[in-house]
Amino acid sequence: MSKKYGLHGKLKATAGNGEKLAAILLEASQLVSTAKGCHLYLISKDRKEEEAVWVTEVWDSKEDHDNSLNVEGVRALISQAMPILDGMPQKGQELEILGGAGIAQ
Amino acid sequence: MSKKYGLHGKLKATAGNGEKLAAILLEASQLVSTAKGCHLYLISKDRKEEEAVWVTEVWDSKEDHDNSLNVEGVRALISQAMPILDGMPQKGQELEILGGAGIAQ
Repeated sequence: MSKKYGLHGKLKATAGNGEKLAAILLEASQLVSTAKGCHLYLISKDRKEEEAVWVTEVWDSKEDHDNSLNVEGVRALISQAMPILDGMPQKGQELEILGGAGIAQ
Repeated sequence: MSKKYGLHGKLKATAGNGEKLAAILLEASQLVSTAKGCHLYLISKDRKEEEAVWVTEVWDSKEDHDNSLNVEGVRALISQAMPILDGMPQKGQELEILGGAGIAQ
C-alpha cells in the first residue's frame, strides 16, 4: 500500500479534567471516523501520566489529517477542550506507516 | 467497549538494517493478524530516527499480546531480527485504549 500518515500525540488536561478531555476526544473520534482518508483515531490513557490523553491517528495523507479540522462539529469540540488543557498541545510524533495488520490497506 | 491493551514501541536496527528490520516486522504483523485478540499491529518509521522501526499494537488484553510470542513462526522471525538489533529493545509505551474509531469495538 502507499505510505499512510500516522500521528501519535498527547493532550494534557488541567488537574481533575482528564476524564472530561477523554470524553471530548472520544466524541471527536466519532465525528472524524467517516472523514476522507481516516483509518484510525484511537483515544487512550497512559497510566504513568494522570490527566494526559493520547490520540493515535492514521490517515491516507497529512492533507487528509489537516482537513479533519473542517469536519462539522470538530471546531466546537476543540473550543470545549481548550479551556481544560494544561498548556498548548505539543506536536505529536509523525509516523510513516509502512503497513501491518488491522487497518484497510 | 472494555479497555483494550495498547503498546507503542520501537526497535532500532544496526546501521543499514532498518529496511530489513521493517520487512521482518511486516511479516510478523501478518502472522499475528489472526491471533486471538489482535486488533492492530502497525509498522512505521519516524523520519527523525533512521534505522528505527515503530510497532503500534492493540490487543484485547495484555495476556493476548504476551501469547502472540507463541504464534507459529513468530519466534523464528525474532531470531532473524535479534542479530540486526542495535541494543536490547526497550519497553514500549503501554496504553489503555478508551475507544475511538478504526478498530472493532
